[in-house]
Amino acid sequence: MILVVGSIALDTIQTPHESVEEVIGGSATYICGAAAKLAQTGVVGIVGTDFPQHHRDLFDSWGIDTSGLEVAEGKTFRWSGKYHDDFIHRDTLSTDLGVFETFSPEVPSQLRDAKYIALGNIHPDLQHSVLDQATAPQWVVADTMKLWIDIARESLDRLIKRVDVLVVNDEEARDLTGEISLAAAAAELLSQGPSAVIIKRGEHGSSLHTGDDLFYGTAYPLHKVVDTTGAGDSFLGGLIGWVARQGSTDIETIKQGIAVGSCLASFTVESFGVERLDAATLDDLAERTEILLDMTQVKEIVL
Amino acid sequence: MILVVGSIALDTIQTPHESVEEVIGGSATYICGAAAKLAQTGVVGIVGTDFPQHHRDLFDSWGIDTSGLEVAEGKTFRWSGKYHDDFIHRDTLSTDLGVFETFSPEVPSQLRDAKYIALGNIHPDLQHSVLDQATAPQWVVADTMKLWIDIARESLDRLIKRVDVLVVNDEEARDLTGEISLAAAAAELLSQGPSAVIIKRGEHGSSLHTGDDLFYGTAYPLHKVVDTTGAGDSFLGGLIGWVARQGSTDIETIKQGIAVGSCLASFTVESFGVERLDAATLDDLAERTEILLDMTQVKEIVL
Repeated sequence: MILVVGSIALDTIQTPHESVEEVIGGSATYICGAAAKLAQTGVVGIVGTDFPQHHRDLFDSWGIDTSGLEVAEGKTFRWSGKYHDDFIHRDTLSTDLGVFETFSPEVPSQLRDAKYIALGNIHPDLQHSVLDQATAPQWVVADTMKLWIDIARESLDRLIKRVDVLVVNDEEARDLTGEISLAAAAAELLSQGPSAVIIKRGEHGSSLHTGDDLFYGTAYPLHKVVDTTGAGDSFLGGLIGWVARQGSTDIETIKQGIAVGSCLASFTVESFGVERLDAATLDDLAERTEILLDMTQVKEIVL
Repeated sequence: MILVVGSIALDTIQTPHESVEEVIGGSATYICGAAAKLAQTGVVGIVGTDFPQHHRDLFDSWGIDTSGLEVAEGKTFRWSGKYHDDFIHRDTLSTDLGVFETFSPEVPSQLRDAKYIALGNIHPDLQHSVLDQATAPQWVVADTMKLWIDIARESLDRLIKRVDVLVVNDEEARDLTGEISLAAAAAELLSQGPSAVIIKRGEHGSSLHTGDDLFYGTAYPLHKVVDTTGAGDSFLGGLIGWVARQGSTDIETIKQGIAVGSCLASFTVESFGVERLDAATLDDLAERTEILLDMTQVKEIVL
């Protein structure tokens, strides 16, 4: 069982090409949408009474255990952002925390013994709270964002010590460590506790750093990007989903999980919200992982 | 035989950490330093009467055929540049063409039938001139730079039609095509004639684009970078050196050549000038290519 915590949101997004209003979003949503394709998944999160039923139905259609999904009087968390032309950098136009403001995560009894725990991007205090309630965590993966580096650094530093795998993007890795070199940043983060650090590099893929291993994962290449919101969360969901499905946290499985995560992220960026991710079948995923692996294989070099 | 044309220069370089004056540089120098480790190489270029003998001795120590290396009355080409903190972007502080101003490349008879031709970064008119004199070209690889895109576009466009492989960096690919997506830029460049386009992405590696194939090569990771000058040229030299050594231009050999080129470039950036590249043995290179290939291998994913 995978236990996911994170935000569930209604996103209003402007990209260089298009705009949409109040599509489903949030870190927990994208993690669940990816992970649930691969293994049993339960979610801990909160929405307001205004959360549309058809969005809630999505979680059910994915077979998610929603016993930890609290519906509170008030408004669902809303985020609005505008992407730059590069589809990577974005400006937050508005954030309305709504029911998230007073959220105190309660992990239901049937989810407490989950072995695999995905701490999606939310305030690190909430990530701590979920981890405190877990009774048998074997592999804990956490994401974060610049906001928490800026305003909740002490809590975040304590969290990093508690996780097995820290997943951050290149800018976050540099912000967290003050290192320009991503290799040096990863080394510094590893020294704080995690057994692995994964640095997401957008269209350039990602790198996996452990004490002994260094691995470069390629991003699944796309000619057309619609919206990159949720790509990192889908990557994390695919990674933990694959690891849970295989029941192994060895390095080779993690490398495969990075490839699976990259392919699931590639579906996410092909639509706003979770539309394309939702539609992707395991066959679609298998097609992309095969292409991705082919794209990076080199025959032995004998000098 | 590999025929290399390009600049031979005395570089004065400021990096965020250190500065050096008048180290040996130039596109032909770095291409030769890499290629000559792998296959017989000859150079066409020009230096002034002020070119130090110990620099000239380097070419001899690499076993380069220097019958096409003209020594002209006057000063050797000098370039001076300053790198930004990212070690990627740089400002040219001064350029003194010297004897390069009136250079008219003359390919000696024993180099004219070279099968493998590396057109290093120089004015595209000079690249044309060398290609015009080649009698049996089988695989022509060309590099360029933003300056020629800006001031010699017509000649460069004609050159692109004549080469087998165009090697450019990400910014040049975008400048040449107006496309933001590198995949779209590669497709546009391929439509102009080359059978393959390689886009260098600095620390993120490179991508190989053909009509049918897409391949991502990883950069050899380094904790410490001294000076990135010549990295792209060494990459090109390693690529053509490997292809010539194998005597095959098939896609699998080109992929291996990209890995070999990345490793040779990694030596280049570990020192100013060609010091580290010069010192690297075939055993050193084999060690890095093995590490590099290991770093990107993923076991088959069965869904």
